[in-house]
Amino acid sequence: MKPLIGTELKRFLRNYKRENRPAHDLVALLQSVEYPANVGSIFRVADGAGVNELVLTGITPTPPHPTIDKVGRFKSLKVPWRYEKNPLKAIAALKAEGYHMVAVEMADTAVPYHTFTYPQKTCLIVGHEDHGVTKATLAACDTAVFLPMYGRGRSLNVHVALSIILYHILHAGKT
Amino acid sequence: MKPLIGTELKRFLRNYKRENRPAHDLVALLQSVEYPANVGSIFRVADGAGVNELVLTGITPTPPHPTIDKVGRFKSLKVPWRYEKNPLKAIAALKAEGYHMVAVEMADTAVPYHTFTYPQKTCLIVGHEDHGVTKATLAACDTAVFLPMYGRGRSLNVHVALSIILYHILHAGKT
Repeated sequence: MKPLIGTELKRFLRNYKRENRPAHDLVALLQSVEYPANVGSIFRVADGAGVNELVLTGITPTPPHPTIDKVGRFKSLKVPWRYEKNPLKAIAALKAEGYHMVAVEMADTAVPYHTFTYPQKTCLIVGHEDHGVTKATLAACDTAVFLPMYGRGRSLNVHVALSIILYHILHAGKT
Repeated sequence: MKPLIGTELKRFLRNYKRENRPAHDLVALLQSVEYPANVGSIFRVADGAGVNELVLTGITPTPPHPTIDKVGRFKSLKVPWRYEKNPLKAIAALKAEGYHMVAVEMADTAVPYHTFTYPQKTCLIVGHEDHGVTKATLAACDTAVFLPMYGRGRSLNVHVALSIILYHILHAGKT
């Protein structure tokens, strides 16, 4: 085995992408994600996962921003995004576009993320690092999913949780 | 829907964990992961995924370390780990224990991570942020897997890549 670099790597990834187009239209809505490093990380994985759009709401910092740009490898220049102060307004608009709204949150009716069948148009909603998705936002969502925790901690980092679920949706059932 | 907090959340997660024990024995080997924030993030997700052990090798910084501890939420006190300078020595020892060694790397014979059937005892190997898994380490591995990239970027962050694959192994085929 040898690592691929340069043009070989570029060709390898391009061919894979051409032959394996994602079946889902994915959007992610950030409901007051506070830390710029998390927002940057989300831009990077959103690019990787071929997300259609990021919707930044509430106190979520927006590009251009030195930390978002550095951690996010300037993917805010590639991934379509917009800012809407009120998450409920953004959710209503996405629902009108046909998106199924899936909150990533430990809620009383939440199901394990890997047991849910994600509709073709899915928007994942993640919340604040400490406070999560608010009651008001949860009430506007169609579904809540959670990530099982097999150790001592009660949660994963917000950008890690989102990354796991985005890649799960892209590849679930494809073996 | 309402968010779960405090003892309700604790009970919810504990019950889930009891009824859904992971089927795999998982280990992760860090081959010169340089940044303490990545090592901390890996400790946090290793706890979440119920990883048996982290093996830190080469220039990988080790706990206790202010950044590893903070980002990792002190999970280095919960997740078993050890340091072994030489990754090849650590790989040989893990193979002797029956672990299948899976490098996370864009290599010429790498397969998409979601198409591989991971043996019950699996060790994932991740490499340096810029240089990845070295040729010498790759040569000692049984398999290489890669994460498809559907945007412009060529890679995900090392702790994000590891997180996606760990959670994939835990839940693949379980719906």
